[in-house]
Amino acid sequence: MNERKLTYGASGVDYSRIDPLKLMAQAAARDTAPNLRAAGYAEIEESRGESAYVIDMGDFLLAAITECLGTKALVADAMRALSGRSHYDSIAQDTIAMAVNDLVTVGARPLAVHAYWAAGGSSWFDDEERMADLVRGWKAACNASGVSWGGGETPSLSGVVCEGAMDLAASCVGVVRPKERLTLGERLRAGDAIVILASGGIHANGITLARKLAERLPQGYATRIGDGRMYGEALLDPTVLYPKVTEALFAAGVEIRYMSNITGHGWRKLMRHPAALTYRVTRLPPVPPVLEFLAREAGLDAREAYGSLNMGAGFAVFVPQAQAALAVETSEREGVRAFHAGRVEAGDKRVIIEPLGVTFEGESLAVRL
Amino acid sequence: MNERKLTYGASGVDYSRIDPLKLMAQAAARDTAPNLRAAGYAEIEESRGESAYVIDMGDFLLAAITECLGTKALVADAMRALSGRSHYDSIAQDTIAMAVNDLVTVGARPLAVHAYWAAGGSSWFDDEERMADLVRGWKAACNASGVSWGGGETPSLSGVVCEGAMDLAASCVGVVRPKERLTLGERLRAGDAIVILASGGIHANGITLARKLAERLPQGYATRIGDGRMYGEALLDPTVLYPKVTEALFAAGVEIRYMSNITGHGWRKLMRHPAALTYRVTRLPPVPPVLEFLAREAGLDAREAYGSLNMGAGFAVFVPQAQAALAVETSEREGVRAFHAGRVEAGDKRVIIEPLGVTFEGESLAVRL
Repeated sequence: MNERKLTYGASGVDYSRIDPLKLMAQAAARDTAPNLRAAGYAEIEESRGESAYVIDMGDFLLAAITECLGTKALVADAMRALSGRSHYDSIAQDTIAMAVNDLVTVGARPLAVHAYWAAGGSSWFDDEERMADLVRGWKAACNASGVSWGGGETPSLSGVVCEGAMDLAASCVGVVRPKERLTLGERLRAGDAIVILASGGIHANGITLARKLAERLPQGYATRIGDGRMYGEALLDPTVLYPKVTEALFAAGVEIRYMSNITGHGWRKLMRHPAALTYRVTRLPPVPPVLEFLAREAGLDAREAYGSLNMGAGFAVFVPQAQAALAVETSEREGVRAFHAGRVEAGDKRVIIEPLGVTFEGESLAVRL
Repeated sequence: MNERKLTYGASGVDYSRIDPLKLMAQAAARDTAPNLRAAGYAEIEESRGESAYVIDMGDFLLAAITECLGTKALVADAMRALSGRSHYDSIAQDTIAMAVNDLVTVGARPLAVHAYWAAGGSSWFDDEERMADLVRGWKAACNASGVSWGGGETPSLSGVVCEGAMDLAASCVGVVRPKERLTLGERLRAGDAIVILASGGIHANGITLARKLAERLPQGYATRIGDGRMYGEALLDPTVLYPKVTEALFAAGVEIRYMSNITGHGWRKLMRHPAALTYRVTRLPPVPPVLEFLAREAGLDAREAYGSLNMGAGFAVFVPQAQAALAVETSEREGVRAFHAGRVEAGDKRVIIEPLGVTFEGESLAVRL
C-alpha cells in the first residue's frame, strides 16, 4: 500500500453501510406507486433508479428530484480566512447544479427549485456577507438554469446540523414536453457517439477526499497548485450548470439517446444505462489543474482517479454518430467545451478508457440499488 | 420572571436572526419568476409566501414544497434506551406530514414525495432496526397521504450533520385540479366558520422547548405525564396526516375558503390569511395530555402556550357557516376529530380565544417575510 494514498474507504464515506438502507427504501418506494394511479396519474416505472422520478400527467411528463450538496460548504468555510471571501455564491451554484443537472438527464426542462438551507444554530445567520453571497449565488444559478426559485426552508437545527455548518440541498420539478423528449435510454444503441461536456473543476463530488488531502498538506488549502492558485480556491470553482446546454441540444434537433451526469463514481457513470453495452473512450478532455493536483497528491492511479472523480468530464450525452459534431458545436455555443470522446459498442457492460489503458467492469457501478 | 419558565428565546431558536436571510431570499426568489414565463408557464404570484409554490400548467395548477422535520428525531434517539424502540416510524410520518400538510393548504392533492435523509456519518446506517422503522414508517405515511414515494437522497455528511444524528426533510409535488380548488384565500370572508381538526400531540413544532424541559426534569423523558405515559413517548406520537381529510372535504362538496396548517407560532397561525379579519374562537378542542404537561411544567401561561404550541388544533379549515357541520362530520368519518370552533369577523387582524381571554394581535405573526 502506498502510504501517501487516500481512498474513499479511508476518507470516511463507506457506501457498503448505506446501501442496505437504499435497497430497503427503493423496494418500499416501489410499493407506493398505486397511490399515483388512484389519483388518476401513472409513474414512468423505468424512471425509478434513474436520476429523476417521472410522472405521466397526460399531455406531458413531470420530473421531480431532491439532491444535496454534500460537504463542499466545509471547504468554503475553511477558505474564508485565507481568501477573505465567503464563496457561498459558488456553493449556491453547486447545490442548484446537483439538482438540475440530474433532472435534465431524463429529458426534462427544469421549471422551479426549492431551497433547503439547514443551519447548525442561529449564529450561522450572523454573517451577513455569507448570507448575501448565498442568496445572490442561488438567484444567479436559478437564472442560469432557467428556473424559478419557488421557495424553501431555512431552519436552525442545533443538535442536528453541526454548529457553524449548513446542510444545503435543493429540490426541483420540471417537464418533459413533448413526451418524446424522455431520455430513459430505450434508444441508446451500439454505434452511438459519446459526447463529453467539460467540467469546471471538482464540482461537488470527491470533496471528502479533497478535504482529507488538505488536512495532510503542510499548507492545507493555501497550497499552490499547478496554475498558481490556492488549492482551496480552485476546489471552490462552481459546478457547471448544464440545463442551458441540454435545452440548446433539443432546440438544435439533436436526438439525445441518453444522458449521464458524472458525479460520484467518476467515469464509471458513463455506463449508468441499464443495458449491456461497452463504452469506448478514445479521446480525453483536459484535466482541470485542481483534479490533476488532487489525484497526484492523494496518490491515486489513473483507475482510481477516473473511477471516483470527474477528471474533466462533467456530463455525458449519447447521440447518433452523425450528430456528434452538431452536439459539440451546440454545447460550445452555450459556453461549455465539449468533446466527441468515443463510442458505444456491443459487448459486455464496461467502460474502456483507451488512452489510459483502464477498463471499468459493469459490476463496479452499483448505483441502481 | 418566573424561574420555571422556558421560552423560545431561552431555548435557542432566535427567529430575529434568521428573518433577514428569509427577507433577502424571498426578494431574490421573486426576481426569478420570469424564467417560468420564458418556459411557457406562469407562477401564481399570490402563492409566494403561502405554504406551497403554485405554477399554472395550463389545464391545472402544480404545487411544490420542501419541508424539514426539525429536531424531533433527537427525542426519538433519546427515547431509544428508555422504550426499547427506535420510534423512527413515527419520525418518518412527522417528516412526511410537514410537507403534505402544508401542500394541501393551497388546495392541492399531493402526488409524489422525495425523501431527504442526511446522516452524520456512515455509522448511522449500522442500526438496522432504526433503518427498517424509518423505511416502514415512510411507506405507511405515503400510503396514508395517497402519495407515491418517488425517490430521495441518503447522504452521509460527516462534519455537516452531527455525529449520530439525521437531518430529515421531504419535498412534495401535487396538483390543484380543477383549478377552482385553489385556496389562496380570495374567498375568505367575515361570517365564515373556523373548523379545527384535532392534532395528535405536539406534532413537530415546539420540540426545542420540549427538549429543554426534558433536560430540566429529574427523570427527563421518563417522567410520567397525566395519562401515565412517559413524557418522551407521548412527545413521539406522530403528526396527523391531513390530506385524506382535505380530499374528503373536496369530495363532499365543502367549499373550502382557506386552510392553515397549525405549526410554528401555534394558534397565531389562524390569522395566516393576509387580509385584515378577526378570528373569534368560542370553543376549544381538548388539549393532548403531553401539551398540557409541557405548558404547565415549562411555566407557560395560556397566551404563551397557545401562541407557540398547537394545544390540540393541528389544522384549520375555513368554510361557509352553513357547511361547518358537514366539514366536521366529513373529517370525523376520516378518523380525525373536528370542531366547529368559531367564526371569522370583520375587524382588525387578530385571533381572539374567548374561553381563555387571550387575544393575539396581527403584528405578532410575521410569517410572510
